[in-house]
Amino acid sequence: MTTQLFSHTVQHTLDLVGIFAFALSGGLLAVRKNLDLIGIAMLAEVTALGGGVLRDLVIGAVPPAAFTDNGYFFTPLVAAAVVCVLHPEVERINRSVQTLDALGLGLFAVTGTAKAHDYGLGAVASVALGVATAVGGGVLRDVLANEVPSLLRWDREIYAVPAMAASVLVAALIAAGALGPLTGTGAALVGFALRMLALRYGWRAPRAWHRNGSRTSEE
Amino acid sequence: MTTQLFSHTVQHTLDLVGIFAFALSGGLLAVRKNLDLIGIAMLAEVTALGGGVLRDLVIGAVPPAAFTDNGYFFTPLVAAAVVCVLHPEVERINRSVQTLDALGLGLFAVTGTAKAHDYGLGAVASVALGVATAVGGGVLRDVLANEVPSLLRWDREIYAVPAMAASVLVAALIAAGALGPLTGTGAALVGFALRMLALRYGWRAPRAWHRNGSRTSEE
Amino acid sequence: MTTQLFSHTVQHTLDLVGIFAFALSGGLLAVRKNLDLIGIAMLAEVTALGGGVLRDLVIGAVPPAAFTDNGYFFTPLVAAAVVCVLHPEVERINRSVQTLDALGLGLFAVTGTAKAHDYGLGAVASVALGVATAVGGGVLRDVLANEVPSLLRWDREIYAVPAMAASVLVAALIAAGALGPLTGTGAALVGFALRMLALRYGWRAPRAWHRNGSRTSEE
Repeated sequence: MTTQLFSHTVQHTLDLVGIFAFALSGGLLAVRKNLDLIGIAMLAEVTALGGGVLRDLVIGAVPPAAFTDNGYFFTPLVAAAVVCVLHPEVERINRSVQTLDALGLGLFAVTGTAKAHDYGLGAVASVALGVATAVGGGVLRDVLANEVPSLLRWDREIYAVPAMAASVLVAALIAAGALGPLTGTGAALVGFALRMLALRYGWRAPRAWHRNGSRTSEE
Repeated sequence: MTTQLFSHTVQHTLDLVGIFAFALSGGLLAVRKNLDLIGIAMLAEVTALGGGVLRDLVIGAVPPAAFTDNGYFFTPLVAAAVVCVLHPEVERINRSVQTLDALGLGLFAVTGTAKAHDYGLGAVASVALGVATAVGGGVLRDVLANEVPSLLRWDREIYAVPAMAASVLVAALIAAGALGPLTGTGAALVGFALRMLALRYGWRAPRAWHRNGSRTSEE
Repeated sequence: MTTQLFSHTVQHTLDLVGIFAFALSGGLLAVRKNLDLIGIAMLAEVTALGGGVLRDLVIGAVPPAAFTDNGYFFTPLVAAAVVCVLHPEVERINRSVQTLDALGLGLFAVTGTAKAHDYGLGAVASVALGVATAVGGGVLRDVLANEVPSLLRWDREIYAVPAMAASVLVAALIAAGALGPLTGTGAALVGFALRMLALRYGWRAPRAWHRNGSRTSEE
């Protein structure tokens, strides 16, 4: 969705894969919440493109990439159509969907961080916007579906931390003058791998420290 | 709220009528949710102006029109005051309010699409932003009121589809070099008529396809 | 967070105090909602910086100040860390936290109004953006936590009204050519004092007028 880290074709293909995976998760939540076709299409669009639009508004890259490339706009609609007809099947191959989603997570963290840096932002802000690119769409999806964002819940496997790892790596590579196709791919794969390990081993982030073991609630 | 499709006076008057109707729906929801006067005023403002502000941020038209024309800002406050005192009466003439709201829906879809095109966006993005102009405020209203957006619910008459029809018509008129006051009014009236027919005949969008008639839930 | 009303050092110190107080309220809500460390950090960031980011996007000051000053970014993380370990103690000194929060409220209303004016917005829009700077982060906090924004609820002490008072004062001072360090401080203190009085005496905004004393609901 951003800087020319990879060849245009490779970048664009990877973008569309990540967008498709994000859109599937938006569409599936819409089906679970019993929304209509409009709801399924809108949650697919918002989940897939929301993070990148947020980043582009903040760095002043208007109109955002999502509004200048029709492929970015139509891919979520394809995902929405797939979900409408095949949602039981898509739920059943959930592990494959999560794998594609993890690929998108790593990729968008990397390209988001690089694009923010291209627009002149510092290392800390670039990392923050890389993470926002990767996780922002999912947060908007949950807000529109009237749920506490999955990203913030203690009973879900970590999602932001793998994105942070990838973004911090990219910022370090930029600082070292070593960001290129190979190292960028490496950073994306680190994010991808951490997310997959988190899913496999149920890694969760802790909650606030409670001194006598009492939790505020076990919801 | 946007391009000079109509004479300035006509455009501005129509804008204010649409803004007033949208603001009424925001204020009424705030009363139903038992919010205070601040809540009523804020939901009125957000519902009336939110869609246009979103569009203007995306196309880079800052500050958004809502912040440069005091009429746009004060009209929702008038609507909020009306709702505060007369909400039972306003609820009772709900059909009239919905008619004004449908007028606003058609109008803002048309002017939103035209303004996005004026700022150099392509046909697909212009349609998307026309729809966002028309429906964005209502979505923000529902998110602030902590409800699933009415727009996305299967048990509500279609609202986005009439806006899409009007926006697509405008994009086609632009492509044909035929967008003018008359054809633009026609497109807005198509959106208006579709919404009124949807209300009258209870047109709803379908949900995802369930093969053996089972629904995920009948909430 | 904005215009050079005070000396840079004074302004920056005050900003960080206000940001810290806002972040504490975000972190505490995250703990109450049983979110994980990521959720605590994100709600702290969003509460502290969300209002200023909204204002900067609207006036076209991109990238927003929150993304150009690392102190603005790291202060909420410090507050989040404090909340993680000491949340029972922080809850216990709630009155002190509310005092700092009221200071931030008055300060951000003043600097937000002044910055919007600096960017060429009119008096009404500047007041609206001053209020948005002061209260926007808290609204985003509540939306992300899936709650009706505290700002809009009738059963909470007024929060927006003190910000409005401070912002209107600043707009009047600007119109009179009398905005300076002393008068600006005065306006901020008026906002601060009104909020403290509201907390002390339980001042609430009324709801919509109900003619026979019936309330839509007493939730």
